[in-house]
Amino acid sequence: MNSGAITLPIGTRVRKSPFFNATREAGCTCYTIYNHTYMPVYYEDPVADYWHLVNDVTLWDVACQRQVEITGPDAFALVSRLTPRNLANFKVGQAKYAPMVDGNGGMLNDPILLRLEQQKFWFSLADYDILLWAKGVAIDSGLDVDIREPDVSPLQVQGPNAVEVIADLFGDWVRELKYYWFKEGELDGIPYLLSRTGWSNEKGFEVFLQDSRYGHQLWDRIMEAGAHYGIQPGAPSQIKRMEAGLLSYWNDMDIHTNPFEVGLGNFIDTDQDVDFVGKSALQDILKKGISQRLMGAVVDGDPILVNEECWPVRCGEQVIGKVTSAVYSPLLDQNLVYVMLPIGHAKPDAIIDIVMPCGDIRSATITQLPFTSNRAR
Amino acid sequence: MNSGAITLPIGTRVRKSPFFNATREAGCTCYTIYNHTYMPVYYEDPVADYWHLVNDVTLWDVACQRQVEITGPDAFALVSRLTPRNLANFKVGQAKYAPMVDGNGGMLNDPILLRLEQQKFWFSLADYDILLWAKGVAIDSGLDVDIREPDVSPLQVQGPNAVEVIADLFGDWVRELKYYWFKEGELDGIPYLLSRTGWSNEKGFEVFLQDSRYGHQLWDRIMEAGAHYGIQPGAPSQIKRMEAGLLSYWNDMDIHTNPFEVGLGNFIDTDQDVDFVGKSALQDILKKGISQRLMGAVVDGDPILVNEECWPVRCGEQVIGKVTSAVYSPLLDQNLVYVMLPIGHAKPDAIIDIVMPCGDIRSATITQLPFTSNRAR
Repeated sequence: MNSGAITLPIGTRVRKSPFFNATREAGCTCYTIYNHTYMPVYYEDPVADYWHLVNDVTLWDVACQRQVEITGPDAFALVSRLTPRNLANFKVGQAKYAPMVDGNGGMLNDPILLRLEQQKFWFSLADYDILLWAKGVAIDSGLDVDIREPDVSPLQVQGPNAVEVIADLFGDWVRELKYYWFKEGELDGIPYLLSRTGWSNEKGFEVFLQDSRYGHQLWDRIMEAGAHYGIQPGAPSQIKRMEAGLLSYWNDMDIHTNPFEVGLGNFIDTDQDVDFVGKSALQDILKKGISQRLMGAVVDGDPILVNEECWPVRCGEQVIGKVTSAVYSPLLDQNLVYVMLPIGHAKPDAIIDIVMPCGDIRSATITQLPFTSNRAR
Repeated sequence: MNSGAITLPIGTRVRKSPFFNATREAGCTCYTIYNHTYMPVYYEDPVADYWHLVNDVTLWDVACQRQVEITGPDAFALVSRLTPRNLANFKVGQAKYAPMVDGNGGMLNDPILLRLEQQKFWFSLADYDILLWAKGVAIDSGLDVDIREPDVSPLQVQGPNAVEVIADLFGDWVRELKYYWFKEGELDGIPYLLSRTGWSNEKGFEVFLQDSRYGHQLWDRIMEAGAHYGIQPGAPSQIKRMEAGLLSYWNDMDIHTNPFEVGLGNFIDTDQDVDFVGKSALQDILKKGISQRLMGAVVDGDPILVNEECWPVRCGEQVIGKVTSAVYSPLLDQNLVYVMLPIGHAKPDAIIDIVMPCGDIRSATITQLPFTSNRAR
């Protein structure tokens, strides 16, 4: 169903992660470009990689998840302006999922925000140049801040054995690290930040390397520590993230999508005193209600392939929406899709028709997201 | 010398140009990602494509060159704030190469800026999310503007036969279109903007499609009109752009590079009254002088391959700089490189050593850019 493979040239226009050579040596031959950086997509194949993640533990090069660092006397003031999330109880050492919107309330990113010091923050970003957004917003703000992309490159260690691997390498203290908290340290001179976060619903950590010269060394140390636990190189898994109900910027949302449409209302506080960018737009949207909503759906029939296009969703003869993401889950033995639907059609258990690339129509049953429960805590 | 090919998946996280299917049908199998959009890299091979461009005419899908459209009563005021170029004599119907810098004078982009109406502008962009930058700068500016990415997708028709092809299709008036001027129109209902611009130093046009539904149709019309003139599908050519001395963002510059270092001083006016972003930083840089400069160099020996890394440049045993771009020019039968050098070493006719990926040292002779003269006017 998918068309033939296309090749991607390697050159100096795209940045190489500090783990790039390690990933090539580990056998990766499929990459995409994310935040101007090569990112591994899979090693053996997406399904084999998935089972390593679900059964054992996997190491992902997500250095492309670049950081925007905001420091200076007014850092907290600017950060508060950049997300509709209420940060009143945000502690040093804590991470928060912090959607960002533009002045119209359109989604710009859904990063993890880390508070490293009272006035030092990182937005750990999806694929959009938030460095420029943050710098732009700061220009006439009168706020005294410094904004830059630091030399910080995350790895993710995800899977049921992640705690054992990370404890063996970094020490038993990591077992006490709470979900969405982090600590900084040095591993034999390699500066890192370790957080109990990740883009799966398995147990996992992110290891933010703070000096790119140690990329290959840190990769090797984690692979060595994981050898006893069946560690394999891996990458963000479309299967796993869809089972988990996680969103992918550009797939499932863009600047024309508001956070309520993609189920992020819980992370938005339009009643807080902070005058964040997009506040009045989001208040208006709340008042009027949303017109479309991203839902899950389970598609009948044989296993589907990842969608190359947004497949049309029909109700009778009428196209009413689109499939933004699609994958076959081998664990659930189900075809999972995310569908953007008019609010009147976004009802669990309702049946919709999906137009497959070959022209066939498949029935699908709408569900709430996520498809599987969170095993990460 | 280059390592094995890597593959790029096709999915909904990356946008497809309105010409994407046409480029696949035309046989393209090598793409990169540019402004979150698939971009063809070559068809037959980079050298064959190059000869079509130099001898005849080629059609490029550069829809990834996205536009940021700025309209509203204060559009000109915001645009003037976003580039150090002096826009005092900027006429409707005219295009200008307009570098953009951040508050530190660091390069953000080197777009073509088009003035469509008194208060309607497009920045036609290299690969960086200037939409976010422009929106951010506008936030607290007090300026009444509307900023968006319109449904506009450029094609380029470049090569010595470009004028004949475009005249046959759009009419003889295009022969009178001056270099860096444009006109809007409709071709049998297909809305376009046609400009005498392009990313080569051959004669050429950009055809900005203003309704993506007509992508395949416009592609086909141009290929049909070009059949008599030997038109072939092509793509931005590393060989041609380096011969022409054209810069590529991320290859040759980034946010840490100032415009004077990459030879763009002629496009910067720090004496104008306009308080553009980065003005005082650029004034400071001018006062102190630059510490590094991008130069050309011709490398001895057998034809080189495009560089996957920035090769080190040595003077004696000391690494003094780096090769940002490299290519073999079949026309000149020379190995061309761009090198970023400390200002004291940036002297035409001086000899430098380049450390090739295999470890060999090659001598190179520094030159001014460009390597070949402009045949585009």
